[in-house]
Amino acid sequence: MTTGAHTMADAAAMRRALELATRGPSRGVNPRVGCVILSRAGDVIAEGWHRGAGTAHAEVDALSKLAPGAAEGATAVVTLEPCNHTGRTGPCALALIEAGIARVVYAVSDPGDHSAGGAQRLRDAGIEVDGGVLADEAGAMLEDWLFAARHRRPRVIVKWASSLDGRAAAADGTSQWITGPAARADVHRRRAAADAIAVGTGTVLADDPALTARDPGGQFYDVQPVPVVFGRREVPADASITRHPHAPMFFTGTDLAADLEQLQRRGIRSLFIEGGPTLASAFVAAGLVDELLVYVAPALLGGPRLALGDLGITSIDGAKRFTFTDIERLGDDVLLVAHPASGLDTLRYSGNATERN
Amino acid sequence: MTTGAHTMADAAAMRRALELATRGPSRGVNPRVGCVILSRAGDVIAEGWHRGAGTAHAEVDALSKLAPGAAEGATAVVTLEPCNHTGRTGPCALALIEAGIARVVYAVSDPGDHSAGGAQRLRDAGIEVDGGVLADEAGAMLEDWLFAARHRRPRVIVKWASSLDGRAAAADGTSQWITGPAARADVHRRRAAADAIAVGTGTVLADDPALTARDPGGQFYDVQPVPVVFGRREVPADASITRHPHAPMFFTGTDLAADLEQLQRRGIRSLFIEGGPTLASAFVAAGLVDELLVYVAPALLGGPRLALGDLGITSIDGAKRFTFTDIERLGDDVLLVAHPASGLDTLRYSGNATERN
Repeated sequence: MTTGAHTMADAAAMRRALELATRGPSRGVNPRVGCVILSRAGDVIAEGWHRGAGTAHAEVDALSKLAPGAAEGATAVVTLEPCNHTGRTGPCALALIEAGIARVVYAVSDPGDHSAGGAQRLRDAGIEVDGGVLADEAGAMLEDWLFAARHRRPRVIVKWASSLDGRAAAADGTSQWITGPAARADVHRRRAAADAIAVGTGTVLADDPALTARDPGGQFYDVQPVPVVFGRREVPADASITRHPHAPMFFTGTDLAADLEQLQRRGIRSLFIEGGPTLASAFVAAGLVDELLVYVAPALLGGPRLALGDLGITSIDGAKRFTFTDIERLGDDVLLVAHPASGLDTLRYSGNATERN
Repeated sequence: MTTGAHTMADAAAMRRALELATRGPSRGVNPRVGCVILSRAGDVIAEGWHRGAGTAHAEVDALSKLAPGAAEGATAVVTLEPCNHTGRTGPCALALIEAGIARVVYAVSDPGDHSAGGAQRLRDAGIEVDGGVLADEAGAMLEDWLFAARHRRPRVIVKWASSLDGRAAAADGTSQWITGPAARADVHRRRAAADAIAVGTGTVLADDPALTARDPGGQFYDVQPVPVVFGRREVPADASITRHPHAPMFFTGTDLAADLEQLQRRGIRSLFIEGGPTLASAFVAAGLVDELLVYVAPALLGGPRLALGDLGITSIDGAKRFTFTDIERLGDDVLLVAHPASGLDTLRYSGNATERN
């Protein structure tokens, strides 16, 4: 439980632990975590961070820098609740107890079914535990990982660009460029921030997209999303995605929820759905959209090429309701950002384990 | 021509003339015009304004307050270039000349084909003429009248409310309410500001709209738009529009440009197109849209009921391009206001007659 007894020193040490966390990989099944060990006098005596699945957790990494007994009575400040799980490494809670740590300060509760419970285990061992220190900062860094851990699937972002009348292309299929360079640059930045980027096989066949994230100069961003293809149609052996820095992943799309679970198990925390309309509509109809990005161009097209197809909605009462969370002008275009009106994941980063949901 | 020799006294008198102008009717074939006569010493010696078609123009109204000879050597300050046209009343330019006015100050040039040329006639008679004083203020007041006079048709505003995916209704036709109360109140305010409000016969038959402008309490605004129905289908004798404060006007809609010219001749300066998709699409396809108002609800509907139908556009190069001029949050919804990207009527209110176009 959060006791509220946070000190300025706790916050300062947590800030350092957050810095250390960013040294870890931004993707993968494990979160980025940092840890600082403070002496009884409040001095930093060790630092650690997690370097990815199969390597030491941040707490164990920090403790490993200390001579035996040196952590006796010390405080461990860690960005995520110490785990209580024996995987490829032992539970951190146990490591902290065995090292003689007297107090543990953490930022965000561990939402994992297997790994949670560390704070309780520490308390049961007589260790003073304070959660929730800089919870918002840590939560923001871990947003996608926390979402994926809580929901057992990646956060799904559905994006389309359309004319003011909801068309994604003209009647002959031409769609370059409905929106202008500022909107396209924004799309690429958001692609780069996602773990994976998905299209349907129809889009692969029609547009042969590269599914890479490029800056306005055409250069690849350092981190590229993994290409994911949904559908049953065969992808040509010479499709552009076969030259993507990451090997594409393929799913039939007949059970999107199951496919998403698969993706999460493979370390994908956020999935950016690029289209086309069939794939986007399937995710919307399945209620599996966590964020909508609609780039609206001040143009009218008419005709049959819609950004979304049928959603199985018959009456206005069945409308999928969202909330506009952001509206941005991007050059001549407008970006409307929306989140589901009900079930909006507010991502509480509380240290109080009972608030997890 | 504008000499630029405007004084503070000119501006003060023009401000008064603008106040007087607002006493006239806001609708009809004639514009609202006000006039102030200043003595040689700069004192206001007479005021006048136009009360509607068939009555004295503002200049003549003001001059009528003076004893014969009293305007000799005086300055006339008038919100619109004095007319040079003999209609139901004689040309104001002549009246000013005959009254012995020495100087005329006006705000906005008269764009009318028949009525323009007053400034030149005054100059030819040796009168000093200064145009463009408070031209922006006067132009704003006369915006729709100037537009209609220049283009020989009303300014056309096309409005629709749609979901984020461009649907105006659910599959079963239900559409109340896609958007929320703030958006609906905004629509009613804009209805009240328009001279006329139009729907297609399909919408009359499907929705039986009242086509009145009501405040959020349901009370009628003081000024109501004239209902206009386009289409060939018969309107039921008991349709709601038959109970509208104004008698509805009917057009087949087969030649929209000709219908608009008719409307302008009947004193309609602005036409608010309410829908449905067929009528809105026809105006867009004909290139007869001067302002687009798209109320976007943060909802998804899918299905076949679109805000716009076909526009005869085959390729992306044929897209009707607009410019977003305003983006407003209205409760949960967003209003996107757009104007045609080319041919945007910038409504120059210059006193220089050669700038008219």
